Amino acid sequence: MRTPVSPIQIIRVEQGAATVTDDILVTEEPLEIRLGHGPQEDRKEVRLSVTMRTPGNDEELALGFLFTEGIISSTSEVLRVAYCEDVKEEERGNVVRAELHPAVELDPAKWQRNFYTSSSCGVCGKTSIEAVRTQCNTTLTPFGAIDPKVITALPDRMREAQTVFKHTGGIHAAALFDSDGKLLILREDVGRHNAVDKVIGALLASRTATSEDASGQLTTNNYQLLVSGRAGFELVQKCIMAGIPLMAAVGAPSSLAVQLAKEAGLTLIGFLRGERFNIYSGGGVLARHPDRRQDT
Amino acid sequence: MRTPVSPIQIIRVEQGAATVTDDILVTEEPLEIRLGHGPQEDRKEVRLSVTMRTPGNDEELALGFLFTEGIISSTSEVLRVAYCEDVKEEERGNVVRAELHPAVELDPAKWQRNFYTSSSCGVCGKTSIEAVRTQCNTTLTPFGAIDPKVITALPDRMREAQTVFKHTGGIHAAALFDSDGKLLILREDVGRHNAVDKVIGALLASRTATSEDASGQLTTNNYQLLVSGRAGFELVQKCIMAGIPLMAAVGAPSSLAVQLAKEAGLTLIGFLRGERFNIYSGGGVLARHPDRRQDT
Repeated sequence: MRTPVSPIQIIRVEQGAATVTDDILVTEEPLEIRLGHGPQEDRKEVRLSVTMRTPGNDEELALGFLFTEGIISSTSEVLRVAYCEDVKEEERGNVVRAELHPAVELDPAKWQRNFYTSSSCGVCGKTSIEAVRTQCNTTLTPFGAIDPKVITALPDRMREAQTVFKHTGGIHAAALFDSDGKLLILREDVGRHNAVDKVIGALLASRTATSEDASGQLTTNNYQLLVSGRAGFELVQKCIMAGIPLMAAVGAPSSLAVQLAKEAGLTLIGFLRGERFNIYSGGGVLARHPDRRQDT
Repeated sequence: MRTPVSPIQIIRVEQGAATVTDDILVTEEPLEIRLGHGPQEDRKEVRLSVTMRTPGNDEELALGFLFTEGIISSTSEVLRVAYCEDVKEEERGNVVRAELHPAVELDPAKWQRNFYTSSSCGVCGKTSIEAVRTQCNTTLTPFGAIDPKVITALPDRMREAQTVFKHTGGIHAAALFDSDGKLLILREDVGRHNAVDKVIGALLASRTATSEDASGQLTTNNYQLLVSGRAGFELVQKCIMAGIPLMAAVGAPSSLAVQLAKEAGLTLIGFLRGERFNIYSGGGVLARHPDRRQDT
């Protein structure tokens, strides 16, 4: 069993004085995601991706990744996600396999177009500029009128629920709230995109489990997603792919994140701190707006 | 000419009151890096990578990326890096081409092994776990004895030199210092790995320009690198690839970052704030250490 935190002995230096002490680090390990069909059929398998992640909720991470990257468009396309047993001992727990529905074709060429290198990465990706944003042409149903008090309450609610951050101080979080600001799902990961994928994967998995929506589509019209860091392009893209109409970030958004949010009708909030926040896109959702310009 | 910041009109909400105001965003745009030989030869070209970056110092970014990812092992392998002219109008300034020395082979299969998905990305990468860390087996010459006062002075020096952060509050930085803490190179980027690649690319370019080291190898024995965020695995790897023996981060390191630092002999410092910092690896460099345990 892989754990989200790892013990370490460090030297703490304060005012020039050094002491040896025990500490806890956030765990970062590779997760390989494979795709294939069931054991009865052809065992052809695709090694889709390796992501450096914090262990935990790996099935959700794989499911969320497949969905937000456009590899699958419904949970009904995946029969199950499970750890691979046929791997080296040291890779056990770090390789998962998504078993596709027999009707879903295994077509690596199609998926290749979906990959690019995000600004938080830069060490991978081998496609052209044209491949960026290819799959993200969704238009969202705008979020209903928002109450600033609901928005400003979100960060404290997320922080209170973060367990790994309390121990390590070095982990990102993503949290899904309903329109009243009630916390629905929280996930933590060393990679902020992984935290978002885990949230969306958890949502997909719960829908599947309850058969609430037999089609495997998400109903996320009134949800809002909060991320702990900055709002980069790739996080906004994942949020749009999941059909979530409002995204708030504790940090700053980038130019491309704002541009994409405007195109898709996403309400994008940044610098959400204390009683303050900025609205970068979809300002029309502000309930009592004093200005005529609603469409920033 | 692409610019590192972009103007925008936003709605600022404070204590429930909203006002429309002008603001500045950090620019995030794709940079495509191509590899090829000169115009006299075969025009075969490889589209190596697309990274989402903040425009500026793009030649350095490409050079640094090629070096820290092990695509080249010396600047002498690259004749020049230039913007491509044969691209669509909207991609102009976002595509660079590194022209390889005629003696360097264009072998995409070799490079494919070098790519993986970092924990800050997760939307790209299509290799196996085995491909992670393949090229990073360097052992560093340990950093000389350090003075805590030199270390704690670094963040303020970096922050003072950051121009884009002052305007946007949403950008990462990497800074190279000599052993006395003198700032040598500072670069900012929306992606922290890009900031590191730009610093290392700038160092490589300056060596080439001055012919100080005709072999194109870096002499970085007494340098120290500071990064504005957390110390993830991929930043530590880049630092080691450049032969820099000390890396300090304002935030937390991950378990894999510490493990890699220990293997390579890198002194890794985290949570560098005010008069405090933690040493996670290479504690033997602390000049006056009160404890017998020097080798954390």
